[in-house]
Amino acid sequence: MKAEDRFVEKLRGLLPDCGRVLIGPGDDAALIAGRPGSLAATTDLLLEGTDFLPNEDPEQIGRRALSVNLSDLAAIGARPEFFLLSIAYAPEKGSDYALAIVRGAISQAVRFGACLVGGDLSHASGTVVSVALWGEPAGEPLLRSGARPGDVLWLSGYPGRAAAGLRLAQERSEPVRLLPQDEELLAAYRDPVPRVGLGVWLAREGAARAAIDVSDGLGIDSGRLARASGVRAVIERDRIPVSPALAAFARRESADPFDWILAGGDDYELLFAASENEAVRLAPPRPEWEIFVTPIGYFEKGEGAVLRDRKGDRDISELGYDHLEKA
Amino acid sequence: MKAEDRFVEKLRGLLPDCGRVLIGPGDDAALIAGRPGSLAATTDLLLEGTDFLPNEDPEQIGRRALSVNLSDLAAIGARPEFFLLSIAYAPEKGSDYALAIVRGAISQAVRFGACLVGGDLSHASGTVVSVALWGEPAGEPLLRSGARPGDVLWLSGYPGRAAAGLRLAQERSEPVRLLPQDEELLAAYRDPVPRVGLGVWLAREGAARAAIDVSDGLGIDSGRLARASGVRAVIERDRIPVSPALAAFARRESADPFDWILAGGDDYELLFAASENEAVRLAPPRPEWEIFVTPIGYFEKGEGAVLRDRKGDRDISELGYDHLEKA
Repeated sequence: MKAEDRFVEKLRGLLPDCGRVLIGPGDDAALIAGRPGSLAATTDLLLEGTDFLPNEDPEQIGRRALSVNLSDLAAIGARPEFFLLSIAYAPEKGSDYALAIVRGAISQAVRFGACLVGGDLSHASGTVVSVALWGEPAGEPLLRSGARPGDVLWLSGYPGRAAAGLRLAQERSEPVRLLPQDEELLAAYRDPVPRVGLGVWLAREGAARAAIDVSDGLGIDSGRLARASGVRAVIERDRIPVSPALAAFARRESADPFDWILAGGDDYELLFAASENEAVRLAPPRPEWEIFVTPIGYFEKGEGAVLRDRKGDRDISELGYDHLEKA
Repeated sequence: MKAEDRFVEKLRGLLPDCGRVLIGPGDDAALIAGRPGSLAATTDLLLEGTDFLPNEDPEQIGRRALSVNLSDLAAIGARPEFFLLSIAYAPEKGSDYALAIVRGAISQAVRFGACLVGGDLSHASGTVVSVALWGEPAGEPLLRSGARPGDVLWLSGYPGRAAAGLRLAQERSEPVRLLPQDEELLAAYRDPVPRVGLGVWLAREGAARAAIDVSDGLGIDSGRLARASGVRAVIERDRIPVSPALAAFARRESADPFDWILAGGDDYELLFAASENEAVRLAPPRPEWEIFVTPIGYFEKGEGAVLRDRKGDRDISELGYDHLEKA
């Protein structure tokens, strides 16, 4: 039996029971029993050095690969169902390294109800992980294009923590004793929590008109929401929730936390538009969301995305990570 | 607008009309209208230096990325429907390079009825292409596990040409005048034709009991079919069709064409098991297959895969490309 086939045998031992999977990993293609209704599908390619640090723990890489895809489905309001996972890794790392990535991916998938159905395996000089994930819209899909003038702009959780966590991770290659608040920032970067419960609830209840996940930066992603909807997003600086851990870290670094909040990617929070009268339903947080949400601004006629404070408006629609402008 | 968003705008201009695609590239996830019945899914990760040569034409890389996935669906007997495409490329190549990969992928997808619904884009030092492809089983799926003792082993097309074509491509980095037969071998490597028509027909007609696509080598892949089915595959050397182009090239290189035929991967022909009485339906080639098929052996009780000739039996079940043993 070849090494690749032995790997698949080991991998099968990691798979939980999944009802609708008729044929899982090991044949030429997977087979999944049908269900009525439409399908939401997304994919993300993660590369060593770009999407995770070279010394990153492989289980963590696997979890992250799932999380960023789960976040995309959350943003459209779909329940995760199945995923395909491809891994390329340096031969000297050994196949246990790849199995650890699989284990991490499965652990995060199981938490949100998704089953591994197949994948591909290869060698490369740096680690590459590709996930394709699909699921079932929980209601009318939350597109980027549905926001209208007068709608309120909501954000889940605390923005900017992941960018600060990345700075911490890059600064500290040696294990050092971290302050508790540093752990929060590092975790936000290393192990983001996709807002699946919130996205599914918003779609099921019809409570949002448009949504996007904040993967590249609050600035750029609010700009994308605005552009797709043909409106302008206005974010009020004073209403953005600033994590106490982020504020403390920024003071220590003599940095402005808003640099991370506006331009830092990787938060995987949901940014969504809801009509004004949804405030009644959105203000009290619900346990199934597993996160709080904050109204941080609104939409008006116009275009672009601005940050508004006492000094006036500042264009923020270009603030963030561009996959094609950084190498 | 960021470079990535500009890319998506350009990409949208390349998309043909696709009825069931409700939301295509540009939102957080794609949305596809449902249909009754089960779903077949597959994925392949292609890496520069491993799955294609560094100087390969980008349109060709895109076509190939689709072909290897289409071949997996063909092997299970499913009609291709839609796909996700992720590309990472070196910044100095420019975004037109990535667009050319997309163009190539779409051109091959359109030929076989599949629609691009989304993807991901990133920078990397070497080109990485990942495809996830879905489709609809055209009948009872062709698993690897259905072959029984007494079944006939059939093969589509000529095996070994792609391996010889790879040798040619590696030898000739400079454009030189090629013999017509060399062009055939090069094309078999560079632009393999997935046997979608044949796979769909076999599943629809219930004419095959098991199938696999020959991606890693006739030896290793017949061994996989045998192992999954719990039988032994016997291939009769004299019945394997040898392409005249391959025979001529082997003579010129003073090589044994059977080295390529048995151990060379990348042919993407279909290898399948059919009961003896299917010979009536399989012997006359049908236009919708777009390829001929040859009975090259049979299955018997036992295990493994052997090549049988006048000198006796030779184990071939380990002959081929192992994704985890070569770097």
